[in-house]
Amino acid sequence: MDTKNPVISFLSDYGTTDEFVGVVHSVLADLAPQTKVIDITHGIDAYDIRAGSLALARSVEYLCPGVVLAVVDPGVGSDRRPVAVEVGGGQSVLVGPDNGLLAPAVAMVGGASRAVVLNNTAIHLAGDATTFDGRDIFAPAAAHLANGGDLTDLGDLIDPGTLVPGVVPVAHTDTEGLHAEVLWIDQFGNAQLNIGPEDLPGTSAQITVAGRPRTATQVTGFDQVGPGKLGLMVDASGLIALVVARASAAADLGVSCGDPVLITPAGQPPASSTTGTPVALTQREEN
Amino acid sequence: MDTKNPVISFLSDYGTTDEFVGVVHSVLADLAPQTKVIDITHGIDAYDIRAGSLALARSVEYLCPGVVLAVVDPGVGSDRRPVAVEVGGGQSVLVGPDNGLLAPAVAMVGGASRAVVLNNTAIHLAGDATTFDGRDIFAPAAAHLANGGDLTDLGDLIDPGTLVPGVVPVAHTDTEGLHAEVLWIDQFGNAQLNIGPEDLPGTSAQITVAGRPRTATQVTGFDQVGPGKLGLMVDASGLIALVVARASAAADLGVSCGDPVLITPAGQPPASSTTGTPVALTQREEN
Amino acid sequence: MDTKNPVISFLSDYGTTDEFVGVVHSVLADLAPQTKVIDITHGIDAYDIRAGSLALARSVEYLCPGVVLAVVDPGVGSDRRPVAVEVGGGQSVLVGPDNGLLAPAVAMVGGASRAVVLNNTAIHLAGDATTFDGRDIFAPAAAHLANGGDLTDLGDLIDPGTLVPGVVPVAHTDTEGLHAEVLWIDQFGNAQLNIGPEDLPGTSAQITVAGRPRTATQVTGFDQVGPGKLGLMVDASGLIALVVARASAAADLGVSCGDPVLITPAGQPPASSTTGTPVALTQREEN
Repeated sequence: MDTKNPVISFLSDYGTTDEFVGVVHSVLADLAPQTKVIDITHGIDAYDIRAGSLALARSVEYLCPGVVLAVVDPGVGSDRRPVAVEVGGGQSVLVGPDNGLLAPAVAMVGGASRAVVLNNTAIHLAGDATTFDGRDIFAPAAAHLANGGDLTDLGDLIDPGTLVPGVVPVAHTDTEGLHAEVLWIDQFGNAQLNIGPEDLPGTSAQITVAGRPRTATQVTGFDQVGPGKLGLMVDASGLIALVVARASAAADLGVSCGDPVLITPAGQPPASSTTGTPVALTQREEN
Repeated sequence: MDTKNPVISFLSDYGTTDEFVGVVHSVLADLAPQTKVIDITHGIDAYDIRAGSLALARSVEYLCPGVVLAVVDPGVGSDRRPVAVEVGGGQSVLVGPDNGLLAPAVAMVGGASRAVVLNNTAIHLAGDATTFDGRDIFAPAAAHLANGGDLTDLGDLIDPGTLVPGVVPVAHTDTEGLHAEVLWIDQFGNAQLNIGPEDLPGTSAQITVAGRPRTATQVTGFDQVGPGKLGLMVDASGLIALVVARASAAADLGVSCGDPVLITPAGQPPASSTTGTPVALTQREEN
Repeated sequence: MDTKNPVISFLSDYGTTDEFVGVVHSVLADLAPQTKVIDITHGIDAYDIRAGSLALARSVEYLCPGVVLAVVDPGVGSDRRPVAVEVGGGQSVLVGPDNGLLAPAVAMVGGASRAVVLNNTAIHLAGDATTFDGRDIFAPAAAHLANGGDLTDLGDLIDPGTLVPGVVPVAHTDTEGLHAEVLWIDQFGNAQLNIGPEDLPGTSAQITVAGRPRTATQVTGFDQVGPGKLGLMVDASGLIALVVARASAAADLGVSCGDPVLITPAGQPPASSTTGTPVALTQREEN
């Protein structure tokens, strides 16, 4: 890492009810006492690799240079590889399981330059445990890098092309309209779709969820959405979110992550053709 | 700010399930790497300005000198003003939306000396997003102050008298008795009221909620409340809370935040007159 | 404390919805600004001393030298003693209520060398509050120690033998089989038992919960457990946990913390005798 004061940014599905996060912080503080550790979130649903990968992708352009420690790892104890993936010309390294969790974030910042499998057990914590690689393998690897240790100290170089890819759904258009999908429902109930503002058929559009069409209008503030109405907003990631004023659009619409959403021009019945080019999360502009 | 090592104290309704808090921490670490950031809480109910303002008011006398970054902001993207409010003779600055969130805390520490609207866009993060001012406007402003930047760098001075006031309900007495209100129900189910110990008619009192009277006795420890009984305790904010032993008084009483509570002398039927002077949160003793 | 850069490790049942944790952090930052504070967890169920004590015991061998600040304190305001307990030949001090919360962790690291009751009020925060000793008594004591202050400054020495013991249930064997108990159900639904791998009758065993027997097989990875099957895994604490693949074993089995689990050899009807020696949590190997 070519960073003077690297930060370790930490995301997991450990939750904050148990002591998992605190134990990982303790290992990091013990092994890399000078390094700042920032929790991105530990509220990813248990085992939800897709949700973790999307949260990481949404965050990555704002993270400090250094190490990203990411653990959503239902395959812990299996033969899935623990890896470290170098990006940004050596500016940062992502450490975690090779199960697709890291892939969208890696793509967002320009792809991997080098990668290693964490098979140098001299850097792991001693012990027989097979269930807590965040503590025993990933945290020591992150600390080693934060201390200025070389990537190749952690294990054997592997071809970055062999890393498990992410699974970000791409919207597509057919004669029915633009088929999008709910990528994420945030704390406030805003429902992020996998489309950008350039994909909308106009400043208002018809949104069909579970066969029920509704008209939605593009807004730049939640309070511009009238009572009983639905808004389309460019959200903080640059994607389109379905929103309502001071309440949950997801609850209003009855949608969950992964649900399909059909988008057609306002005032037209469905089954019309559109010419928009759907974009995937990884294709949005980077800064 | 006249503080040598300012701390940024951060409160929001962002929750900890999403990455919002982590992204704000990352922006702060990038822009003000030497500054300690303390999370007050991010568990304020979504959009609940009143609850956020009360949590801030309860905390403020314990916060370290520096910057208070507070974001409960349902009007983000509207014309509500983003502001920074200087208090304590320049010892601290509160940064957040001008929607009443900051007002009770500002009052608690003696009122505002100066205030600015955050309209110097050179200090904002670049980008078109209108939904995440915590990241794009408030965090950069907080970092600027923590780095020793001047308040007036952030934007134009405004009259502190034009800031939106807080909405702290004041108890009142009439012929029925003392009409109080539940200000806050904490993690343990203790129900804080908007009255101080000097407002009680005696060391025990009759508490009427939803038409059901119960006798409550003043205690200094939860375990002094017998099974099936109700206690009145001076809580950690100096206000009166309804408590039970090792369980939730709020669940026991069936009360929620904002519910009215009638207080009358013990052993007397309601509709008696009392002479207590009700006090609001902002009138309690400061240290 | 003989540590150069002590860390304060903080566990409580304060939750993260209210501002309690943030206020304690603020007090620590004010009184011991150079000290790193690590949150172990604040998600212990309200008043659950046993759960807090087990979380502390599971964490303690990974915590950094310094101060452990632990507050699960339903008896706050009563005559239960606030204490500081020195362990590890002076390497660390545990600060909290004397109600059994600290005891299993103290035992895990070799027992107490010295202990004091925190009755030197000069070190407490000034004020009349009786409900928030985390803020008013325990945090100032932790800060004092982190700053290099002596244990005996905090109050009078007491006999460590008079500290309230922990309540860690010990498994036992009779003619029915090995009677274990669910110690902990983690975020993922893994159900930790109070037995080690040496207590199992073989690489598979019959597990009887609420009268329903099921066969479980020892695994080293969650994904080794087939659909509809039950696994026995040595968990990150070195104890046996009941697990399933990518789902909650506790939900599958319908067990809660404290529930009894009968373990018998696989393929044998219950009521057989076993010769294993059950071990308690505090008897597992320390590193």
